[in-house]
Amino acid sequence: MAKVITFGEIMLRLAPPGYQRFLQSPSFEATFGGGEANVAVSLSRFGAKAAFVTKLPKNAIGDAAVGELRRQGVCTDLIVRGGDRVGIYYCEKGASQRAGKVVYDRKHSSIAEAQSADFDWNKIFDGAEWFHFTGITPALSPAASAACAAACAEAKKRGMTVSCDLNYRKNLWTPADADKGMRPLMRFVDYLIANEEDAEKVFGVKAEGTDVSTGRISRAGYENVAKKLIADFGCKGVAITLRESHSASDNGWGGMLFTDGGSCFSKTYQVRIVDRVGGGDSFAAALIYALMDERGPQAAIELAAAASCLKHSIEGDFNLIGLDEAEALAAGSGSGRVQR
Amino acid sequence: MAKVITFGEIMLRLAPPGYQRFLQSPSFEATFGGGEANVAVSLSRFGAKAAFVTKLPKNAIGDAAVGELRRQGVCTDLIVRGGDRVGIYYCEKGASQRAGKVVYDRKHSSIAEAQSADFDWNKIFDGAEWFHFTGITPALSPAASAACAAACAEAKKRGMTVSCDLNYRKNLWTPADADKGMRPLMRFVDYLIANEEDAEKVFGVKAEGTDVSTGRISRAGYENVAKKLIADFGCKGVAITLRESHSASDNGWGGMLFTDGGSCFSKTYQVRIVDRVGGGDSFAAALIYALMDERGPQAAIELAAAASCLKHSIEGDFNLIGLDEAEALAAGSGSGRVQR
Amino acid sequence: MAKVITFGEIMLRLAPPGYQRFLQSPSFEATFGGGEANVAVSLSRFGAKAAFVTKLPKNAIGDAAVGELRRQGVCTDLIVRGGDRVGIYYCEKGASQRAGKVVYDRKHSSIAEAQSADFDWNKIFDGAEWFHFTGITPALSPAASAACAAACAEAKKRGMTVSCDLNYRKNLWTPADADKGMRPLMRFVDYLIANEEDAEKVFGVKAEGTDVSTGRISRAGYENVAKKLIADFGCKGVAITLRESHSASDNGWGGMLFTDGGSCFSKTYQVRIVDRVGGGDSFAAALIYALMDERGPQAAIELAAAASCLKHSIEGDFNLIGLDEAEALAAGSGSGRVQR
Amino acid sequence: MAKVITFGEIMLRLAPPGYQRFLQSPSFEATFGGGEANVAVSLSRFGAKAAFVTKLPKNAIGDAAVGELRRQGVCTDLIVRGGDRVGIYYCEKGASQRAGKVVYDRKHSSIAEAQSADFDWNKIFDGAEWFHFTGITPALSPAASAACAAACAEAKKRGMTVSCDLNYRKNLWTPADADKGMRPLMRFVDYLIANEEDAEKVFGVKAEGTDVSTGRISRAGYENVAKKLIADFGCKGVAITLRESHSASDNGWGGMLFTDGGSCFSKTYQVRIVDRVGGGDSFAAALIYALMDERGPQAAIELAAAASCLKHSIEGDFNLIGLDEAEALAAGSGSGRVQR
Amino acid sequence: MAKVITFGEIMLRLAPPGYQRFLQSPSFEATFGGGEANVAVSLSRFGAKAAFVTKLPKNAIGDAAVGELRRQGVCTDLIVRGGDRVGIYYCEKGASQRAGKVVYDRKHSSIAEAQSADFDWNKIFDGAEWFHFTGITPALSPAASAACAAACAEAKKRGMTVSCDLNYRKNLWTPADADKGMRPLMRFVDYLIANEEDAEKVFGVKAEGTDVSTGRISRAGYENVAKKLIADFGCKGVAITLRESHSASDNGWGGMLFTDGGSCFSKTYQVRIVDRVGGGDSFAAALIYALMDERGPQAAIELAAAASCLKHSIEGDFNLIGLDEAEALAAGSGSGRVQR
Amino acid sequence: MAKVITFGEIMLRLAPPGYQRFLQSPSFEATFGGGEANVAVSLSRFGAKAAFVTKLPKNAIGDAAVGELRRQGVCTDLIVRGGDRVGIYYCEKGASQRAGKVVYDRKHSSIAEAQSADFDWNKIFDGAEWFHFTGITPALSPAASAACAAACAEAKKRGMTVSCDLNYRKNLWTPADADKGMRPLMRFVDYLIANEEDAEKVFGVKAEGTDVSTGRISRAGYENVAKKLIADFGCKGVAITLRESHSASDNGWGGMLFTDGGSCFSKTYQVRIVDRVGGGDSFAAALIYALMDERGPQAAIELAAAASCLKHSIEGDFNLIGLDEAEALAAGSGSGRVQR
Repeated sequence: MAKVITFGEIMLRLAPPGYQRFLQSPSFEATFGGGEANVAVSLSRFGAKAAFVTKLPKNAIGDAAVGELRRQGVCTDLIVRGGDRVGIYYCEKGASQRAGKVVYDRKHSSIAEAQSADFDWNKIFDGAEWFHFTGITPALSPAASAACAAACAEAKKRGMTVSCDLNYRKNLWTPADADKGMRPLMRFVDYLIANEEDAEKVFGVKAEGTDVSTGRISRAGYENVAKKLIADFGCKGVAITLRESHSASDNGWGGMLFTDGGSCFSKTYQVRIVDRVGGGDSFAAALIYALMDERGPQAAIELAAAASCLKHSIEGDFNLIGLDEAEALAAGSGSGRVQR
Repeated sequence: MAKVITFGEIMLRLAPPGYQRFLQSPSFEATFGGGEANVAVSLSRFGAKAAFVTKLPKNAIGDAAVGELRRQGVCTDLIVRGGDRVGIYYCEKGASQRAGKVVYDRKHSSIAEAQSADFDWNKIFDGAEWFHFTGITPALSPAASAACAAACAEAKKRGMTVSCDLNYRKNLWTPADADKGMRPLMRFVDYLIANEEDAEKVFGVKAEGTDVSTGRISRAGYENVAKKLIADFGCKGVAITLRESHSASDNGWGGMLFTDGGSCFSKTYQVRIVDRVGGGDSFAAALIYALMDERGPQAAIELAAAASCLKHSIEGDFNLIGLDEAEALAAGSGSGRVQR
Repeated sequence: MAKVITFGEIMLRLAPPGYQRFLQSPSFEATFGGGEANVAVSLSRFGAKAAFVTKLPKNAIGDAAVGELRRQGVCTDLIVRGGDRVGIYYCEKGASQRAGKVVYDRKHSSIAEAQSADFDWNKIFDGAEWFHFTGITPALSPAASAACAAACAEAKKRGMTVSCDLNYRKNLWTPADADKGMRPLMRFVDYLIANEEDAEKVFGVKAEGTDVSTGRISRAGYENVAKKLIADFGCKGVAITLRESHSASDNGWGGMLFTDGGSCFSKTYQVRIVDRVGGGDSFAAALIYALMDERGPQAAIELAAAASCLKHSIEGDFNLIGLDEAEALAAGSGSGRVQR
Repeated sequence: MAKVITFGEIMLRLAPPGYQRFLQSPSFEATFGGGEANVAVSLSRFGAKAAFVTKLPKNAIGDAAVGELRRQGVCTDLIVRGGDRVGIYYCEKGASQRAGKVVYDRKHSSIAEAQSADFDWNKIFDGAEWFHFTGITPALSPAASAACAAACAEAKKRGMTVSCDLNYRKNLWTPADADKGMRPLMRFVDYLIANEEDAEKVFGVKAEGTDVSTGRISRAGYENVAKKLIADFGCKGVAITLRESHSASDNGWGGMLFTDGGSCFSKTYQVRIVDRVGGGDSFAAALIYALMDERGPQAAIELAAAASCLKHSIEGDFNLIGLDEAEALAAGSGSGRVQR
Repeated sequence: MAKVITFGEIMLRLAPPGYQRFLQSPSFEATFGGGEANVAVSLSRFGAKAAFVTKLPKNAIGDAAVGELRRQGVCTDLIVRGGDRVGIYYCEKGASQRAGKVVYDRKHSSIAEAQSADFDWNKIFDGAEWFHFTGITPALSPAASAACAAACAEAKKRGMTVSCDLNYRKNLWTPADADKGMRPLMRFVDYLIANEEDAEKVFGVKAEGTDVSTGRISRAGYENVAKKLIADFGCKGVAITLRESHSASDNGWGGMLFTDGGSCFSKTYQVRIVDRVGGGDSFAAALIYALMDERGPQAAIELAAAASCLKHSIEGDFNLIGLDEAEALAAGSGSGRVQR
Repeated sequence: MAKVITFGEIMLRLAPPGYQRFLQSPSFEATFGGGEANVAVSLSRFGAKAAFVTKLPKNAIGDAAVGELRRQGVCTDLIVRGGDRVGIYYCEKGASQRAGKVVYDRKHSSIAEAQSADFDWNKIFDGAEWFHFTGITPALSPAASAACAAACAEAKKRGMTVSCDLNYRKNLWTPADADKGMRPLMRFVDYLIANEEDAEKVFGVKAEGTDVSTGRISRAGYENVAKKLIADFGCKGVAITLRESHSASDNGWGGMLFTDGGSCFSKTYQVRIVDRVGGGDSFAAALIYALMDERGPQAAIELAAAASCLKHSIEGDFNLIGLDEAEALAAGSGSGRVQR
């Protein structure tokens, strides 16, 4: 299987222990994560050759980010070193009716201030077949947006497949800015991935019959969203994660993949949440893996849903599972019996 | 908003990590809590000026208790220093069918051995509008009971509003002693607060149609309890928390406020419990806040129920939320979606 | 109450913190456990005089295992010291759809390489009334299997009651080997204990109408399993735990005891799982306790089901509860209300 | 080797992690310790049969104390259960010029409020050869003092050897009270043990030429102290630990044993301190062990000094070493090379 | 005693546990610190009324910083809320020959981007007597430098005493920039405080005969430095900390205060280092305290040296000691004996 | 710089927290280490391309070992997967007079049971210039010894430089067996590395005038040892680490490199020990680096001594420093001043 490139930000993630609130006690769990890095990690763990492209400062924190990616098998040779800081996000787990909370401190990070010229696209895309980015990267800064556009164009020029996860973040930009930032990139995108509210937030394409705040989901509504996005942007496929938010502890979870063959819906899982951050990224990664592996749309959406269902049981941003575990769940083994 | 005084005990709370039993491993999480202190912390976090009155020894443990209250914004200037020890309670979390467990080691604490004369009521009540105490303080010792009675009388003399949370504790006194201890204080009380079994345990006023051990709750039963309490004691209002104890992990939760306008019931929440200790205190505090803020009985009970619902998702005695979070939940946002 | 002997392996259990995967962070919770040791601990905590017989190396890790058993009140005077190593099992908690995972590193442990001659059966069984072993011990090695057979014969010779928990472990032997290893021991066994799939895995006796992977359980099917086992092996009684595996977080749990008086089924509990390892051992121990205490079959199965239901809320292998707690749950108190 | 009885208090020890001050972070390391319990643990670890006699409440904290003693091999069968609470001491480690700090919360503990009649001396001393107590027990309360005197008399009546560690604690009583409390017990004492300032504090017998606050020690001065104590009280031997307090991190350490054969001084060790609490107890225990084992005075004081030197490198009250380690150090192996 | 104002930055301090390197394991101890905040904390703990002035963002991390200051008794009413982020410093402990390491991530913090107009100097200095700042604040940004100059001018205008700790940081500015930034502020400064190399780094005033890299210190050299600074800037006094850096684990420590009465040198302490960060701040604070308390120069320098000597034994930035502890050490009690 | 191959074992290292003894509390720090892996990590961190060759089981623990090596930049592509288990060593830190302690549980590990045929030497040595092994590998098992001999022969055949660290382990084999195992390998060795007692233990070549148990070192004695080894085995150089074991907390440390140019001794460092395990490996790695970089013997021994001096301040087996830090210390900067 060939090389996938993901491009974006990896941040230091600072999380209080267990269900504590920020700095309730003087300690943070300190790991790394970020939408595009998470996808690279998942792909690498599944056996794909994945490289993550970003810019990180030449200091001990940047070194640690590189080391952690390397530990997960991600190629870090294409990471540019320089700039001032590693972006940070403070991440507090929700529970029951209390929502999880994220405080971003990612402005002025090395990647947010990186220029397109920092990246040697020839070297980066040499031998690569798939390029993945998310809506977070263009939201970081005008420079990051420009670099992202350049990456898309370069990838497309080389005939690579391009996927994009809309990943709308209200703390980074407004819907209006998101529309302005994302729309021009859509012409490069073969596979568009979104969660249950991204399309509405970014492009104003609403799923009728759905109320995300109550967790009520309409399948037909999402089929129409996909059709509209394909009509507007000419993508080959649109994949949407379908989260039913019962509470911060319990969610329904599944996904839809819409291609020219129509819609395929995955099973719906009722998940008891350990950590839901990175759920969408693990979905995107497994979908990309299955598509590269030409498994067919139904198999692809089942693998994506199963992998990302399991992500909800894993601490941290990275989906620390193996392909075998995702496949077993997709095949029906969700009883959680101890394997010994 | 004006000053609230709460009077009682703050204890060192020693809890094993996670779901471990006492001293299963050689470590305790060491925080502070106690009914009346918890109320002061909630009020202060909501923006009210709250002072907590107690007696604490002049040693490093007493200093730490004061520091922690100060961290939460509670005024500690009225705390008397002296006596022998900070009371302790060992607190083990329950899970599933296993009940939580509390071992008290609070005898001979500075506040239990404090005399009414230790407190300068003129200074304490200067400028204050509301006085809150709970049934724990009179249960500590005859001296504490006398000091509590003195505080009530002094508060009433100054025209302050007085609230009392019955907070019956079977490890501190018998129902008979509780009745004898609490009944004389009732004439000072404007707002009487209780959980679903306090009124029965302390005053023998049973909610017909309810079985607290199974979690079955009768609304009409509690309306009658409130009517009876108002008839007996002449309170302005009676508020009762309604807990449906399905297990140590899952509870139903809501509340009723009964005033001369009749009964108002809050929504019922199904809570996945992180830590239920302090649930009643957070209810009382939010209710006091809403009443002081003249929000009307339905809004008051909804705020109280929402704030205390959220408390169940917070580690420790203190309800470490903001007013905005309680208001958002009362307004309907309980899906627990990550805020980022 | 008289002395119970259990014989088998105690291992070092290395578990990542919380819901982390193996070595996600560089730390292990390090406790001890193993089927037969767990039974001895439960019995001792309930007030029975229990001794655990095994072989442990003369080093600091072996010393720690002995110390931990002693802490739980288990008699360790009969443990033989020598050999090379303490067996290890790495244990990862499951959550939601993700199954728990055990990696065994128990080959070449002192007990696996022990010889029957290492044990002085006269001394071991002096004054003992009950002997318990599980299907794990014969699976360890031919030598352990021989020692186990010798123990059974010696116990039976002295007129003791013998119980056996089938405890099939697919990582230790195949069903065929298990059949060959266990069948000859059955003639010594008075009470045979099994989980919902052991009888099928070891002896090919399937419970019709049950699908353990989905959690669907047929009571009639298990009655037939018990009848068949009694017919084949001449046991006095067969007890089977009935687990409904909804997910790694939520299970249904109960048990059946089949004796010449017919079948008794316990209540079924819906458990929110903290740690399910050792659930079967805590069931066996409580059953043995009740049978020794001549409580009658219905009371026995209720105590066994309640004790083991509570085990699911306890971290680690040992069921750190008291007899009073199991009895209270068996009597109906499962609301999980804080005791204070 | 025969049975040793120690009598006194075991407390819950609450210590902040590392070099933190009390409650600098919300966590305590929670272990158990107390002069006489520490001696019993040391003796048991050296292979002697040691029983610890005290009174502990019937609750989970009392249970944990018993379990911990049992883990260390101490016989707990003679412990009386009842009373209100386990005594507590908060223990903060010193470093460099900052002194360690202890806050006692041990009043009203079960043993402090125990009566002599609580203890069945016949059962306790059955088969015992040596009785050990310290000056802490009589300081707890008049009742504890009376029980201690009764124990001494009963032990003496049975011809047992009695040892006493003066262990003066300024937070428990004044020198005048200590003199009054300890002097009557001296007639029972065969071996009197003290640290470098106890004799002066309790009996006013000063070591000339020594300034404990600077760490300057005069050997001749301590010989005279021992002579005086023997002359006054008729003991067989006096042992004194000689601590040179350079700082909270670095101490000189050694000991003297004075018998009718004159004085024997141990080597002096320069210790880098991990935890010095329990240093004197480990000295007393090793001395008792050596005397029971009839090793001769020089060997005895060397073993005592070596064992207690090693205690300074161990976290917690208990001296978690083996006899072999103390003997090796006494024999000269203090280079600290890794053993692998 | 009257009110002291300190002005500057408080940062989140992220430190790996123990002696680990950055992110060696995925955890940070998360506390708060910063030169001027540290001084306010020390003063408050000594009993002075101290307020800290800064700008912090309106988010949970800013709230936590305010809470922590409040816990230490510092007045936080004058803190301005707004801006983007709390500055961070990553702090790795040194040991033996390995130097401690700090990675700054403090650019773009709220205080670095604050404008002088953000601060209401009339309100801030109302009733204040002493103003303290350090060389870090002007180094943050031109705006912070301007605000600092404004504060100095406003303080001076009101007749307050002004103290400044040079606190040169090579990671924030060059010596040339430091000279340019600090020189204009010197005319406001009554007491100038520096470490053993600040004067040389900032103003090029070298202490002859001293080599800070080897720890060799010349007293005469520092007297000349002080004379030169007083001559140049007209300060009333110059205080210099004298650190002998033997290694990251062991330092010599003392100080000099030079006033019109000549030089006073403190005792020199040999310190075993727990955490040396904040050593200079604790020195400045104790000096300010002593000067405000009019204790005379020798007493002042002894208190400052003793307080800051003790700081080296405390984890974190804040000097969590009491005035009594500093006074006791200054009076000679440095043997580190446990207080019990 | 070209590729270095190291061959041997990487183990799971289980260490109690801080200075605790094994299982004093139920927790292990779980990292990885082993002589040859440690050398590969050091080389990689210094910038050399290093690959580690071993055999590890196909399970989660083996995966974690691979991931950790990858995190440190070591090439893991040549690691063979298979066999039963990852070897373990339990590692307890010493302090003061208490020696560190290692309990090996490494028998039957995948590498101990590996066959030479498991390794494809052509692939392994393709493009490599230097081969390093230690005396531990041949001590593991006859098969490992044979594989090690094969590796040496293959490396030599390709003209590579071969280095060997004698690394005598008394828990693995006797001196007689070590002599028999190591002597035949010596003809392949260009650079022989040893600690202050290895040559005596393995080959009976004693350094006259040295007593390693007291820490007294004779330089002339070690020159003679080197001469003798060169004479016997024909090595190009012999390097010996010179440890003066004052205690488990404090050591002197330095090294000697003897080549045809005579002896070069490094500076001697007095180290305050954080963790001394891996000290020799870090010495070997830095020496290899310097020799490959042709820095000359004095520079080489100074780099090796400085790097390994710093290792003593680092937790765990790996020397987590950069080349710049070793060079700075070698150049004289050992004052440990905080870098900020």
